[in-house]
Amino acid sequence: MAAAAPPPPPSEVPEMPELAPPSSRRPLFARVRLAAPSDVPHIRRMIHQMAVFERLADHCTATEASLSSTLFNSPPFQSFTVLLLEVSHLPFAPLPPPQNPTAVPAFAPIVHTINLDLPIEDPETQIFASGAEGSGAVVAGFVLFFPNYSTFLAKPGFYVEDLFVRECYRRKGLGRMLLTAVASQAARMGYGRVEWVVLDWNVNAIKFYEEMGAKILQDWRICRLTGEALSAFANIDY
Amino acid sequence: MAAAAPPPPPSEVPEMPELAPPSSRRPLFARVRLAAPSDVPHIRRMIHQMAVFERLADHCTATEASLSSTLFNSPPFQSFTVLLLEVSHLPFAPLPPPQNPTAVPAFAPIVHTINLDLPIEDPETQIFASGAEGSGAVVAGFVLFFPNYSTFLAKPGFYVEDLFVRECYRRKGLGRMLLTAVASQAARMGYGRVEWVVLDWNVNAIKFYEEMGAKILQDWRICRLTGEALSAFANIDY
Repeated sequence: MAAAAPPPPPSEVPEMPELAPPSSRRPLFARVRLAAPSDVPHIRRMIHQMAVFERLADHCTATEASLSSTLFNSPPFQSFTVLLLEVSHLPFAPLPPPQNPTAVPAFAPIVHTINLDLPIEDPETQIFASGAEGSGAVVAGFVLFFPNYSTFLAKPGFYVEDLFVRECYRRKGLGRMLLTAVASQAARMGYGRVEWVVLDWNVNAIKFYEEMGAKILQDWRICRLTGEALSAFANIDY
Repeated sequence: MAAAAPPPPPSEVPEMPELAPPSSRRPLFARVRLAAPSDVPHIRRMIHQMAVFERLADHCTATEASLSSTLFNSPPFQSFTVLLLEVSHLPFAPLPPPQNPTAVPAFAPIVHTINLDLPIEDPETQIFASGAEGSGAVVAGFVLFFPNYSTFLAKPGFYVEDLFVRECYRRKGLGRMLLTAVASQAARMGYGRVEWVVLDWNVNAIKFYEEMGAKILQDWRICRLTGEALSAFANIDY
């Protein structure tokens, strides 16, 4: 804030730039689609960015090879599933038909248009380029989720392990677009729940989730057995 | 307690029964095996008992039909998986060979013998009878778990949704036997984590889990979107 500067005399007050009317705002096209094995390099880069953001880069050992060997081994929604968020200043061309047209259940890409007041400066358009050359599309985020199960409901649900939007695309409703894609898929499949976790000090995120209709379970704590403590069980039957 | 009865005169003090030496204690044979569709009635009864114990019976809508239609749709460990705990005062007969011998990965039943100082009074041996008539085996508990995924590790893990031991069989190491079966299976499969949740006030459970080598994640809270709030997303793409 330039609070120390005296106000200019009335004649010199510059005209405040008005917000551009909707018709002249820059449209940003956003698309959520199923990720494919060819997207793994983008996914790995975003996982690494997420680890850096969470100051957990030392804990991130994911490689393209390890992701490729553990994802895409089951039809979508039956196991680990990645939805990719792409953005473009040009309308998206239709996706090519799936290589295996019998794959069910299908996921129709979700496309939404955001009207930007200001252009977005993306310093990584090259490495996150997606689709055909000249399409202008870049990968902007992803959500990874998989089925979980409620014994009380005797129904599957989805657990959202990661939701990530690249920094320059945040605060534009794109995270909500990804999470909504998972929730609407769960609802369409008749599933009972969508769950994820949030850090207890992240009040903005908690507020956002509560506004979506989620409840925050305050009394439960996650227990994790990992690393050497888990390996020690390899040869134990009891 | 017959606290009102006066103590007998010294000459009539009965000899205190000594703890039986190990060789004469009653053995209780415990077995952990993969559940089969024919176990669903037992599983449903235990889910209901668990709901009553947690004072959440109103939230429990699981039926035999809903469990049968959502479990056992995938090979073991690839999706929702139930391990069943059986106990018997007689040694277990070997299990019949699997109906589908090509099913992989196999799970070799785990058998352990517990020496009881006192016999267990099980008021429900009839309804929880398991296996051939006269085998003496009863179902005493179960664990339901399914794969989860860590993007940082780029590895699957297991998430334990429910761990239950019927009341008269508690405090004998049987819960540990079930959880250890899941952890050792995860370790043998090269998985990265086993996770579950615990209520934050359940200090005995937390101590037990920490002694197993688990860490309690204090900062994370579970977010849950369910019921009408989830159904509202059925027709929303954004």
